Amino acid sequence: MTTSIDAQYQQYLNAGLTLDLTRGKPCSDQLDLSDTLEDMIGGNFKTADGIDVRNYGGLLGIPEARALGGALLDVDPKYIMAGGNSSLTLMYQFLVWRLKAWQADDPAQTFKFICVVPGYDRHFTICEHLGIEMVSVGFDSNGPNLTDIEALVRQDQTIKGIWCVPKHSNPTGHTYSDETVARLANLPSLASKDFILMWDNAYAAHDLDPQARPLSNIMAYAQAVQTADHIALFASTSKITFAGAGLAFCGLSEPMLKGFETFLTPQMIGFDKVNQLRHARLLSGKDDIAKHMAAHRTILEPKFRRVQEKLRPLADAGLATWSQPGGGYFVSLDLKIASATRVIALADAAGVKLTPAGATFPYGRDPEDKNIRIAPSFPDMIALDQALDVLVCCIVKASEINH
Amino acid sequence: MTTSIDAQYQQYLNAGLTLDLTRGKPCSDQLDLSDTLEDMIGGNFKTADGIDVRNYGGLLGIPEARALGGALLDVDPKYIMAGGNSSLTLMYQFLVWRLKAWQADDPAQTFKFICVVPGYDRHFTICEHLGIEMVSVGFDSNGPNLTDIEALVRQDQTIKGIWCVPKHSNPTGHTYSDETVARLANLPSLASKDFILMWDNAYAAHDLDPQARPLSNIMAYAQAVQTADHIALFASTSKITFAGAGLAFCGLSEPMLKGFETFLTPQMIGFDKVNQLRHARLLSGKDDIAKHMAAHRTILEPKFRRVQEKLRPLADAGLATWSQPGGGYFVSLDLKIASATRVIALADAAGVKLTPAGATFPYGRDPEDKNIRIAPSFPDMIALDQALDVLVCCIVKASEINH
Repeated sequence: MTTSIDAQYQQYLNAGLTLDLTRGKPCSDQLDLSDTLEDMIGGNFKTADGIDVRNYGGLLGIPEARALGGALLDVDPKYIMAGGNSSLTLMYQFLVWRLKAWQADDPAQTFKFICVVPGYDRHFTICEHLGIEMVSVGFDSNGPNLTDIEALVRQDQTIKGIWCVPKHSNPTGHTYSDETVARLANLPSLASKDFILMWDNAYAAHDLDPQARPLSNIMAYAQAVQTADHIALFASTSKITFAGAGLAFCGLSEPMLKGFETFLTPQMIGFDKVNQLRHARLLSGKDDIAKHMAAHRTILEPKFRRVQEKLRPLADAGLATWSQPGGGYFVSLDLKIASATRVIALADAAGVKLTPAGATFPYGRDPEDKNIRIAPSFPDMIALDQALDVLVCCIVKASEINH
Repeated sequence: MTTSIDAQYQQYLNAGLTLDLTRGKPCSDQLDLSDTLEDMIGGNFKTADGIDVRNYGGLLGIPEARALGGALLDVDPKYIMAGGNSSLTLMYQFLVWRLKAWQADDPAQTFKFICVVPGYDRHFTICEHLGIEMVSVGFDSNGPNLTDIEALVRQDQTIKGIWCVPKHSNPTGHTYSDETVARLANLPSLASKDFILMWDNAYAAHDLDPQARPLSNIMAYAQAVQTADHIALFASTSKITFAGAGLAFCGLSEPMLKGFETFLTPQMIGFDKVNQLRHARLLSGKDDIAKHMAAHRTILEPKFRRVQEKLRPLADAGLATWSQPGGGYFVSLDLKIASATRVIALADAAGVKLTPAGATFPYGRDPEDKNIRIAPSFPDMIALDQALDVLVCCIVKASEINH
């Protein structure tokens, strides 16, 4: 078999491919679904209550955009800040604010965050950039391993927060169970007094299966156990409308929202309200969102199905396991032997870019060197087929080298 | 005269006015000039070199938008980052980055900035928010008092920078002379090794007089004296297109631009490139900008002329002096006696909002309590007339109380 795999790999090397499975970028057909954003103003720059969106002001966003954020995050719009084009920026700014508060209480201290792994590399980069140490915790079938998490926050008061992607998690595709959401909502009552739960609900509306299990409402649980001031919800339309020109949202309790607004005031006058109005008119309620996301599903579902089909030989050969996500943008693949770095280098040499080995772990270090994140949304079906063929070939080849 | 002024003031009190001269907001007619931004995409979301502006990526901005920034800031587009809707945010982020570098060199130190006064309140707020101490320096007729500034930076290595609004300065209306620009470009060579000159060229294209004296190019001077790494240029289209939905620009030497991009990478994927493309198509060169700004001038010039006319009795009575700006958004008025707080309170009681007393000084403290900033752009002519009448009445009334 070695010879045939080597010959196949050589063919890919010769083919001069340039394929990319690295990032969760929408494809062009998906972006087309929102091109009518450009027609939404039609000369009327006023919100329903008469705000001229062209001018300065209004850091919390226009009411219509806050309502859209409320629909996505399943909370009352009064808890929502409608922002600019990047939820990443909102999360970053939010943590800068919290970090300042922790440091005011305890200037000499280093602070820590719990990171569920494998997870989203950009969450980890924010922590690293801000000097927040990361403590990794794994998943079980319901979501993050809560027994470990609860023990950690009880014993270490310098642990100030946790990153969660609760629905169609990046990259594992988990949607947290009702019990997991309830226990997470209670977590701040076990933890340091200024603990914060970062709830990045990036894939809130992004089901591949229209019957997908809904995510429980963490803010409702948190209100019941008096932890609402410790929950920070985030979402965006980056994977609903335009990846680089959508809206970001933050959901916070009223005192926290007020505090965050005050923190942001010296650094901005307000977000782009014209784009907020475009979006609010395109997606003016849960029905609009559902219809729009069904169109995304039609494009994405065949790609995710193809990933499952193409990887199947790896299961038969016992070389890897992988997630079957009910939505989101990723498939998380775990090799049976420690060879992710090698596989990704082989694929790269053959012109197929994959997310760097270790990227889904804090500090870019996968302790087992086994996890590979696959992002099938951007390539067309032909490119996806080729890229997956190369990936499978590289995994087989790497496993033979290692044996 | 007291009786007649009191009677007049009482009439204003009774009139139930609600007028606002506080902020440099464009009026609705000015915003209308850019409504065609919404037609600029017309189904074509690709830049000239084929970038799909709807998708992720490209932190420095699209080439067309960088060219627009280069035209505004009078530098090669390779020095430009085209950002989001707020130059204030870019300035804030830039100073956070520099502060981090200063602190890395000298963790225990407090750092200082020179603030030319009267100046822009939001610059001062950024410093205050970041814990940067402010040292005030006044103006002479050419611009900031450079003899004082040069002496300060020579003697105090904890002074790390200076704020400048070099053209139609906020609020005084100064445009720095050629000699002032040349001396400022050389300032970093006298100062702390990581000194930064914040060049907020917010009114680069905003002449009220089409023959207005041009501003010399500080980057050209800085390159000649090897200080280019210490100059940070900023501009925006907030007062060219939409105040809340324009583009911001930052101009830096190549190594500084690279460093700033690296600093921003953990907090964002990129700015809104769709809005960048809209703007670049509306304003595709210096001729477009000049034509567009001439239309603004037609709206603004009569308002600034009216301010001059309405204030004239104050000069005759020896109660105040004020600036005759050749552009920008403000008239800076200096009372002869210390009564700015009193005047602003009187006006407020009569329904005319003015920028709070002291706002144009660091920490909101005008040592002489004499400066009032007038922003005539937003009200229509009738409202402007009324507001100015009230202001003049309040100044006369306050002067009589004080005498």
